[in-house]
Amino acid sequence: MLDISKREVKKVPALRGKTIINLFYEPSTRTRSSFELAAKRLSADITNFSKQTSSVVKGETLKDTVLNLEAMKTDAIIIRHSASGTPYFLSTFCRSHIINAGDGTHEHPTQALLDAFTIKQEKGDISGQKVAIIGDILHSRVARSNIYLLTKLGAKVVLSGPPSLLPLEFATFGAQVEYSMDRAIDGADVIMMLRLQLERQTKLLIPSIREYRELYSLTKTSFYKAAKNAIIMHPGPINRGVELSSDLADCTKSVILKQVENGIAVRMAVLYLLLGGQDRDNID
Amino acid sequence: MLDISKREVKKVPALRGKTIINLFYEPSTRTRSSFELAAKRLSADITNFSKQTSSVVKGETLKDTVLNLEAMKTDAIIIRHSASGTPYFLSTFCRSHIINAGDGTHEHPTQALLDAFTIKQEKGDISGQKVAIIGDILHSRVARSNIYLLTKLGAKVVLSGPPSLLPLEFATFGAQVEYSMDRAIDGADVIMMLRLQLERQTKLLIPSIREYRELYSLTKTSFYKAAKNAIIMHPGPINRGVELSSDLADCTKSVILKQVENGIAVRMAVLYLLLGGQDRDNID
Amino acid sequence: MLDISKREVKKVPALRGKTIINLFYEPSTRTRSSFELAAKRLSADITNFSKQTSSVVKGETLKDTVLNLEAMKTDAIIIRHSASGTPYFLSTFCRSHIINAGDGTHEHPTQALLDAFTIKQEKGDISGQKVAIIGDILHSRVARSNIYLLTKLGAKVVLSGPPSLLPLEFATFGAQVEYSMDRAIDGADVIMMLRLQLERQTKLLIPSIREYRELYSLTKTSFYKAAKNAIIMHPGPINRGVELSSDLADCTKSVILKQVENGIAVRMAVLYLLLGGQDRDNID
Repeated sequence: MLDISKREVKKVPALRGKTIINLFYEPSTRTRSSFELAAKRLSADITNFSKQTSSVVKGETLKDTVLNLEAMKTDAIIIRHSASGTPYFLSTFCRSHIINAGDGTHEHPTQALLDAFTIKQEKGDISGQKVAIIGDILHSRVARSNIYLLTKLGAKVVLSGPPSLLPLEFATFGAQVEYSMDRAIDGADVIMMLRLQLERQTKLLIPSIREYRELYSLTKTSFYKAAKNAIIMHPGPINRGVELSSDLADCTKSVILKQVENGIAVRMAVLYLLLGGQDRDNID
Repeated sequence: MLDISKREVKKVPALRGKTIINLFYEPSTRTRSSFELAAKRLSADITNFSKQTSSVVKGETLKDTVLNLEAMKTDAIIIRHSASGTPYFLSTFCRSHIINAGDGTHEHPTQALLDAFTIKQEKGDISGQKVAIIGDILHSRVARSNIYLLTKLGAKVVLSGPPSLLPLEFATFGAQVEYSMDRAIDGADVIMMLRLQLERQTKLLIPSIREYRELYSLTKTSFYKAAKNAIIMHPGPINRGVELSSDLADCTKSVILKQVENGIAVRMAVLYLLLGGQDRDNID
Repeated sequence: MLDISKREVKKVPALRGKTIINLFYEPSTRTRSSFELAAKRLSADITNFSKQTSSVVKGETLKDTVLNLEAMKTDAIIIRHSASGTPYFLSTFCRSHIINAGDGTHEHPTQALLDAFTIKQEKGDISGQKVAIIGDILHSRVARSNIYLLTKLGAKVVLSGPPSLLPLEFATFGAQVEYSMDRAIDGADVIMMLRLQLERQTKLLIPSIREYRELYSLTKTSFYKAAKNAIIMHPGPINRGVELSSDLADCTKSVILKQVENGIAVRMAVLYLLLGGQDRDNID
C-alpha cells in the first residue's frame, strides 16, 4: 500500500464501485483527508459529511442519519464523533463496516496502527521497545489505542504527565505510570508526545500552560536521556512550543511526517481488508 | 437502476465526463447525498456547493453565481433553495438541465417520484390506492409534489392536519381535506406522515408541540384504522415522538428506509434520462 | 483544453492518479470550482479544504497543515489565502507544485492568464491593445497580475480609480495612472472593471459607495468613448449597479462569462504543464 502512493499513477482499481462515507462530527485535517485519499487511491467513491451541512441541524438523531446513509447502500462508514462509544453504537445496528476515526476520549485505532507500523519501520521490531507516551493521557484517545496495541505487540509502555491528566487507573491498562518525565524518557526507544488538547481542558486540571510546558514539554536536555537512536512521534496537530519545541519537532529524529505518510497506507490496508479482501491480486 | 446499487461494483459508465453541480442553499443529508451517490454511480463528475463556501457571502446574486457555474460547461444543476420558484427562475435563463431538489414550500419532485415508485413497489399499482398525507401540509413541498403526482396516477389523496397548517384551498388541488386524522386514516392503504418543520413554524400556527402530538401523531391505536396491509411512509428527517412514534417508525409496516434506497435509483433515472438518455445499452 | 470542455465526454485521462489539494482559506465560487472542474476533466483526484473543516481551529500553523498534506504525497496544492505572499512562503519548503489561487492583495496569476487568453481570443493579439483597468486597484490582486502580464505581452495598460484606491506608486509597475475615468477609457480596446471589494474597505478610503458609483461606475455614456469594438471584462463577482451597470454587464460587448469559460481551459493547461507535461499525446 505504501508503494502505491509513491508511483507516478497513485491509483489502483481495487475498490471501484464501493461507497464509503466520511462522517466527521469534529473538525479534522489529517484523519479525514487521510481516509479520503486512501479511498480515492483504491478507486472507491467517498462522500464527505460534516455536522454543518447535514440534517443534524434539523434535529435528526445520529442513528437515523446513519440508517439513512446505509439505505443508500454504503459499504463502509468512517465515523469521528465527540461521544466515546459512537462507533460501537453504530456497529450494533449497521450492516456497513464501521471504522472508528476517533471517538471522544476513547479510541483512535487507525492512529495506533499507523504508529505501530512506523515504529516497526524505524526499529525493525515492536517487541521489547520502550515507548514513552507523554502528556495529556486523560483526554487522549491516541494514548488509549496505543497502550492496547503496543503492549499486545510486546512493547513496554510508560506513561507520563501531570497527575491531574494521568490517573493511576491507567496502570491497570498494562502500562507503567511515571509522573517524572525524565524517568519515563530514560532509555526510551520511542517518545510519543501528545497534544495538549486545549479545547478539552477545564481550567482546573493544569495550573497554567506555562507550568505544563516547564514540566512536560520535550526539550533537547530531556531528550538526551533517551536511548541513542530514539525517535520522536506526535499524532498532530502539534502545539509548537507547548508540548514539543520546534527544533525537536523538525529534527532528524522526528518521524512525525512519516506517521502521516504511513497513515494513508495503513488506512488503505484497513479499507482493502474490509471491503475487497478476497482477491489480493487486484492491488498490484 | 435499483439493481446497480445492489451489485458488487456499484458503478456504470453511463454519464462519464458529465458535469453536475449540487447547489444546496439549505442543509440536507438525504437529498444532497442521494443525488451525489446517484451521480457517482453513473460515473458523472459531481461538485458540491453550499452557501457557506460560496461567493454569496461577497454579495453575488444567485443568477450570477449560476451563470458562472454554467460558463464552466455544466450539464445539470441540482438546486435546493429556501425561495419557492428558484428552479423555475433558473430554468428561464440556463442552458443546463435544472433539477429541483426542493424549493421553499413549493415542490420536491424527486421525492414524489421516489414515493410513487415505493408505493408501486409495495402495492403493485398506484391507481385506486387511498393515500393519507398527514401533518404540516402548509409548509410541505413534499405534500404538494405528492398531491400532483399521486392524483395524476389515479390515487385518492386525503390530507389531514390542524386547520392552521391545512388551509381549505388544498381541496382545489384535487385532494380531499379531512381535519380528523382518524377519518383520514380510515381504510388508507398508504399513510404518509410529514415532518413538523419546527424551523419553519411561527409560534402562532400550533398551540404547542404537545397538543399537535395529541391530535396528529400516528400511534398504534390510530394505525389500526388503516387498511390491512397499510404502509407507513415519511420523507425524513423524522421528529421521533412528535409526528411519529418510534415503534411505528421502526415496525415492519414502515417503508421509510426503502424510500431512501429507492431515492438513489429514482435520481439515477432522472439524471440518466436528462443527460444520457439516447443509448439505453450503456447502463447494463 | 478549451475543446475538451465542449465534448460530449468532458474528460481525458491525462492526470489519472495525481493528487491535488484545493486549499481555500477565503470563500470562493468561481476559482475553487474552476480548479476543481479543471482537475476532474483531467481525471486527477482533487480534495477540497476550507478553513471551517480543518485543524486550523485547533491552532495548527499553516506550515504544519501543508506539511501534513504533503506527507500524503500530494502533487499540487492550490492555495488561496488572505495573507499576501502565502504561496511564495509555501514554495520555500514544499515539494509539491504550489499554485497561487489569489493571495491577499498581491497576485492572482491564473486570473491574469485567463484574461490574457480572452483578450487574445477576442482581439487576435494582445500587443498594442489599450487596456483600461478601473476601480479599486489598491486592493486588487487581479489588477497587479494583469499589469505584470499584459505589459509584458505588449499591451498599454491604463489604471483609473479614486486616488485613495490608486496610489501613484502604481506608475512604477509599467502602467499609466489616470484619475479621470473618461480619459482612461478614451480609445480603450479592453475595459476591465474591478470589483469594489466591500469586505476589504476601511471606511476612510471612499466617501460613500454612491459617490464611488458616480465617478467610477461604467455606464453607457462613458463606454461610448472606448474604441469601436471594445470589450468589457470583470473578474467577478460583480457588484451590479456599483462598478458596473447591469445593462453593460449583460450586453454583447461583455465577455465576462467567456472569461469564466476560459478559466477552466487555462487552469487545465496550468495543471497539465506542471503535473503531466512530458507526453502531449495523452490529452487527445
